Amino acid sequence: MTYGIIGTGAVGGYFGAKLAKNGCDVHFLLHRDYDVVASQGLQVQSCNGDFLLKPVQAYASAGDMPKCDVVLVALKSVNEHLLRTLLPPLLKSDTLVVLVQNGIGLEEDVQQWFPGTSLAAGLAFICASKTQPGVVRHECFGSINIGNYSCPDPQRIEQLVADLCAADVEAHVVDYHLARWRKAVWNMPFNGLTVVMNAQTDQLLLNPATEQLVRDLMLEIVGAARHLGVTALDEAFAEKMIEMTRAMVPYWPSMKLDYDFHRPMEIHYLYTRPLQMARNAGRPMPKLEMLEAQLRFLEQNHR
Amino acid sequence: MTYGIIGTGAVGGYFGAKLAKNGCDVHFLLHRDYDVVASQGLQVQSCNGDFLLKPVQAYASAGDMPKCDVVLVALKSVNEHLLRTLLPPLLKSDTLVVLVQNGIGLEEDVQQWFPGTSLAAGLAFICASKTQPGVVRHECFGSINIGNYSCPDPQRIEQLVADLCAADVEAHVVDYHLARWRKAVWNMPFNGLTVVMNAQTDQLLLNPATEQLVRDLMLEIVGAARHLGVTALDEAFAEKMIEMTRAMVPYWPSMKLDYDFHRPMEIHYLYTRPLQMARNAGRPMPKLEMLEAQLRFLEQNHR
Repeated sequence: MTYGIIGTGAVGGYFGAKLAKNGCDVHFLLHRDYDVVASQGLQVQSCNGDFLLKPVQAYASAGDMPKCDVVLVALKSVNEHLLRTLLPPLLKSDTLVVLVQNGIGLEEDVQQWFPGTSLAAGLAFICASKTQPGVVRHECFGSINIGNYSCPDPQRIEQLVADLCAADVEAHVVDYHLARWRKAVWNMPFNGLTVVMNAQTDQLLLNPATEQLVRDLMLEIVGAARHLGVTALDEAFAEKMIEMTRAMVPYWPSMKLDYDFHRPMEIHYLYTRPLQMARNAGRPMPKLEMLEAQLRFLEQNHR
Repeated sequence: MTYGIIGTGAVGGYFGAKLAKNGCDVHFLLHRDYDVVASQGLQVQSCNGDFLLKPVQAYASAGDMPKCDVVLVALKSVNEHLLRTLLPPLLKSDTLVVLVQNGIGLEEDVQQWFPGTSLAAGLAFICASKTQPGVVRHECFGSINIGNYSCPDPQRIEQLVADLCAADVEAHVVDYHLARWRKAVWNMPFNGLTVVMNAQTDQLLLNPATEQLVRDLMLEIVGAARHLGVTALDEAFAEKMIEMTRAMVPYWPSMKLDYDFHRPMEIHYLYTRPLQMARNAGRPMPKLEMLEAQLRFLEQNHR
């Protein structure tokens, strides 16, 4: 299969490089890092062993890219609107577009822009960052789950998972709604609270008041998701996420890094959209609404 | 009437000095500032004209103070437990103790410690601060409302109000529960949010997200208070408080000053107690619960 990577940052760069290293035909769209990657390749410093991908099929413009069987979208969701112009050159009638992004409501929007296109969610569990142009540092984890949103051909999804596994990337097919909401159970409390409280995950769990707050926020999400029909999600999952986080090394989630580096935060898809869905369904998430308001304030006053 | 002032800071100092200046017999309990005030008097720099109270009937120990007809308590409520030893020397069988403090639940606790004692709430509306030992700076406002909690003799309350008015202090008798909850409508949102967001009142109201958050917090309080029987409080009052605050000069509430100067914050009576009351009555205030948790975190991690 031919792969296109839109957004060659840490996540897009890592999964794309793994696929390409294993022989897949992968085409990378780059923006600021195009010159460096085109001339020096893509370097992956991984906990599982470093490697250099060179040459890289790199592009500075989506219009120059070939049609692809699978497109992995790993843009920051604050740039989601760019997909309206970036995606079309890569699309065939049966292209599978996988949104490897955080949040809720992404597939809904992209589907509206491209009604006939097959969409899936890519839920990445990876600690990775771009340390300099053309260099991805992979700290730990590295799996990706695929949830089918609107692909009529399940085999296409299976094939993607098979390619990933062959490239030594743990990958599974998961239920779309369950996977997106499960991820939200971790993302919504920790991304926002680490920004607002200026504290790492471990500090938040060490203080009894914020530990309970994290739990309350998680249970708001579980409650809303169940109300929206995701009944496989239960309260025990929140406890599991807290214990998992307690066992992790102290961590700054991506939103905190965005904030500290004065980049826009992914407030819309991480908060605004799921909050709207829950409210519209008659099951508001009041504490998460408060967190969203605090983030909106910080975003405006930090720039 | 003989007056005792427990806690001669900005608030206790101001009201006590006004009464004494007008000829009332006022006895001041001081702690750190005793030497300065005993030798140099109490200086009030007021928007309505400066004055010096000298000599001051100052005491370093409550045990040395006379029995009083009225005791004004203006301690920070983080020290409420001290009243168990500070009050007894001043109490006669009919002494009226007025708690000029912020929060909910203060009279309940003090009544439990002194079951037979007459209690009232003093709701001060004043911008004042102690700028140095023995110096109170009074910026603006300066009224005080008295709400009877357990005084069987309404005349005693009337007499206090008359003494205050004679001393050029605007004072009214108000409904105890209504007054305490009305004050909470302003205190709970702005004290906590200015700390957590590190922003003044005007900034919070300029941002649409936090302006709505302030409104949501106020409406949680109105809803809980009404549920607890304070039906004279309505949603229009929240709007009025927002408009009043918008018209004020940018303001740092007392909790923010406490936080910045590494003093303990009045979290217990400003948040924990009203939150407990609302929760026990089956009408929780989720966003204010979150604010309390954030304050608890900051308190622990700031010291």
